[in-house]
Amino acid sequence: MNAFAELMAFQRETEALASVAGRLGWDQETMMPRGAAEQRAEESAALEAVLHARRTDPRLGDWLARANAPDAAGERALDLIARSYNRNTRIPARLAAELARLTSLAQGIWAEARANEAPADFLPTLTEVLALKREEAACLAEGNLYDALLDDYEPGMTSAEISAMFEALRPRLVALREAVLGADRQPAEISHIFPENAQLRLAKICATAFGYDWTRGRLDMAVHPFSSGSGHDVRITTRISETDPFNCIYSTIHEVGHACYEQGIDPDYLFTPLGAGVSMGVHESQSRIYENQLGRSAAFTGWLHTRMVEMFGDFGVSDPQAFHAIVNRVSDGFIRTESDELSYNLHVMLRFDLERDLIAGTLEAADLEEAWNARFATDFGRAPERPSQGFLQDVHWSVGLFGYFPTYSLGNLYAGCLNKALRAAVPHVDAALAQGDASPATGWLRENLQRHGGLRQPRETIETACGFAPTAEPLLDYLEQKFSAIYGL
Amino acid sequence: MNAFAELMAFQRETEALASVAGRLGWDQETMMPRGAAEQRAEESAALEAVLHARRTDPRLGDWLARANAPDAAGERALDLIARSYNRNTRIPARLAAELARLTSLAQGIWAEARANEAPADFLPTLTEVLALKREEAACLAEGNLYDALLDDYEPGMTSAEISAMFEALRPRLVALREAVLGADRQPAEISHIFPENAQLRLAKICATAFGYDWTRGRLDMAVHPFSSGSGHDVRITTRISETDPFNCIYSTIHEVGHACYEQGIDPDYLFTPLGAGVSMGVHESQSRIYENQLGRSAAFTGWLHTRMVEMFGDFGVSDPQAFHAIVNRVSDGFIRTESDELSYNLHVMLRFDLERDLIAGTLEAADLEEAWNARFATDFGRAPERPSQGFLQDVHWSVGLFGYFPTYSLGNLYAGCLNKALRAAVPHVDAALAQGDASPATGWLRENLQRHGGLRQPRETIETACGFAPTAEPLLDYLEQKFSAIYGL
Repeated sequence: MNAFAELMAFQRETEALASVAGRLGWDQETMMPRGAAEQRAEESAALEAVLHARRTDPRLGDWLARANAPDAAGERALDLIARSYNRNTRIPARLAAELARLTSLAQGIWAEARANEAPADFLPTLTEVLALKREEAACLAEGNLYDALLDDYEPGMTSAEISAMFEALRPRLVALREAVLGADRQPAEISHIFPENAQLRLAKICATAFGYDWTRGRLDMAVHPFSSGSGHDVRITTRISETDPFNCIYSTIHEVGHACYEQGIDPDYLFTPLGAGVSMGVHESQSRIYENQLGRSAAFTGWLHTRMVEMFGDFGVSDPQAFHAIVNRVSDGFIRTESDELSYNLHVMLRFDLERDLIAGTLEAADLEEAWNARFATDFGRAPERPSQGFLQDVHWSVGLFGYFPTYSLGNLYAGCLNKALRAAVPHVDAALAQGDASPATGWLRENLQRHGGLRQPRETIETACGFAPTAEPLLDYLEQKFSAIYGL
Repeated sequence: MNAFAELMAFQRETEALASVAGRLGWDQETMMPRGAAEQRAEESAALEAVLHARRTDPRLGDWLARANAPDAAGERALDLIARSYNRNTRIPARLAAELARLTSLAQGIWAEARANEAPADFLPTLTEVLALKREEAACLAEGNLYDALLDDYEPGMTSAEISAMFEALRPRLVALREAVLGADRQPAEISHIFPENAQLRLAKICATAFGYDWTRGRLDMAVHPFSSGSGHDVRITTRISETDPFNCIYSTIHEVGHACYEQGIDPDYLFTPLGAGVSMGVHESQSRIYENQLGRSAAFTGWLHTRMVEMFGDFGVSDPQAFHAIVNRVSDGFIRTESDELSYNLHVMLRFDLERDLIAGTLEAADLEEAWNARFATDFGRAPERPSQGFLQDVHWSVGLFGYFPTYSLGNLYAGCLNKALRAAVPHVDAALAQGDASPATGWLRENLQRHGGLRQPRETIETACGFAPTAEPLLDYLEQKFSAIYGL
């Protein structure tokens, strides 16, 4: 066997083992009995040790030096393996072990501090996490420390590029949100009980409408919905609130977006470096366009309204237009995960700016709460009343996810671009959505983006699908048009 | 670190990885989407390759040569690791790979041949499996080929010893079964629909009554019920027939027996060679005593009858004694897994004798069906009408499980011994069972057997718990007393 074939065979086993690790993670969030947590931690650590040894195996360096790829996909696979090998071998084993140990403890400490509204209980831990992440960034960085971390989630992207896009997004978004919140016309409130079983049935109908392949997946309950797996086993989760059916429906459609991306990748790429979504931002573009540009469109909510009246009877909203407004309500909350299409990106920008300062060392963990509250007051007009509404609300920093937040808004921005290209290419998207059929839209996305998996760089993946370079304009145009109509601006 | 500590640390990681492999198996039978089978096969193979490499790692030989155990448990751990290392290194990698490939294919071929009643479609494959298993046995054997295979499931046991016990069991069992089937008094038939949800509720109540720890386990549906896992994550499965509630109840109690054994092992043994049930026969002794000697006792069925009347209303049986007879009905079927306490052991002895001849080479696969049918006619008074009722009914031989069948009856025989010792030591077992409380019985089993895990040899495990050497007498005495009373012999 030549070096390329040997390398790819080795990589294939590594990817299969990584898939097992992912399945363990799914089990932990959905099925695992609560008494098993400590035992599972040891099982996962044993598997991670195997994976780490394979990802830093010196034979990789040797194969990479000698391998010749037979085609472009092979070239890209070599690049991705080299990238992973270089990152993994640059981080000393001691640091990797300390990070793993600390972040697994830190999550529990954060959760308790949040529950007790006791930021001081979390700050020493956050300071330690931050120190280790800065050390990690220093091992990886060729320039900016933050960019080295960002690169783990959004390869090839820099914070300067993201900053430029966010700066373009920000003023029009702030103006639109203020106009919407000040508008005379506001969506109605729903006060009704929606039984859990019926919601779950409806969620499954929606997942099917958006093209989720049930022969290669399943739907379970989870506290924080997620999608997990690749290829022929991509599972989704949702949650149910009896008073808020949109929580279940739209978290399901969101996860279906992630899952369809994985299910849609060329099966030949399975267990190769090309066999998974190419970046967090591109992944989020799929979940967001499914959830928002398609799922919250007037066309689809019209169909959804009819289904809900059939299933739940009269729940107090008989007009499809009023229903569309309720589904798209812009609210004034403190919590990122509960926010709407307009506020969401402001929540993210705040985190992006603060975490860059934390990694740069220009903001200390001890000053984070004050900085958060001040910035929140600037952006949202009021300060959080409790730490759990403020800087303690997200798990990310406790587990070392610095550089992850911006990929959410990057996904929104990419979704705006993809929506523009999709609507130009497929004029009957809305006509089909009005019949509960998302396939013209999802078919276009599969063909132009999803099936390519990791074949191209993230940004290039979007640009190739759209036919133009991504900017903030399409998202802004879409949001202004949609929310002006709903709120009568 | 000294050799012992190094070896145990390495072993601990291996056991944790083996536990992950077990969890994958559980997922495959309960949760996995059907389209994922091929992908899962590759994931499992990658993990098995890691495990095989660890189990034959040359460092094991070196550590074993140098290690000094600090105590008796350490000595036993060294013995068990050496045993596994010797077995695994004696089998050439080529043979292990061929066996893995063939048996995974053979299961599908067997299932199809059984569904089509086409034994000829399965015989070439069975012949191949048999040839590889004989080759494997030759690599392992120090004497008898069959004993080398048996030793994998029941370490330290020989076919001669089993034969002697079975020969003691056989005549009185045959006589009792014939008397029972010819008795004038026969249990009534139930004709009622028992809703699935209520059955599942009842199964959970029974599992709790028998001491299953839900914080360290869960109950799901499976085509063929099983128990899976060890320590703090031991999951059980069941199945439900709307017309036969005893299928669900007693398969649940059976699996609870297996699960309580694993949950009951000293937590200090987790991820050591002592941290799992010591053999298939000892494992089966737990499932059987829970299911039969305790679960099918008049005391427990009296309590169960009251619960079932509460849950299902009048289902046509108002007398607890008649209910007890129905639960213990002796039937005249062809299928091992559907048979009763008396017939079951005859089904097993037939397989034990035939598979010994197959491995010895005195019976060819081509002659198996005829030999099976002749022996069945001798033991049961009539021949199977279809291959699926005969030699094609069990999956075991297709997947290479030769030497496994006798452990089922060995478990029954051990359960008879444990029941005798338990009743002598804990006089109020029945009084508690009549209140739906199995804890005096299960507490005795945990204290005297379960908690020791793999500390002692299998047979010694039983002998230590009972205080006497296991024989067939206690099982026979129990069966004769019980069935004479039920059938008025």
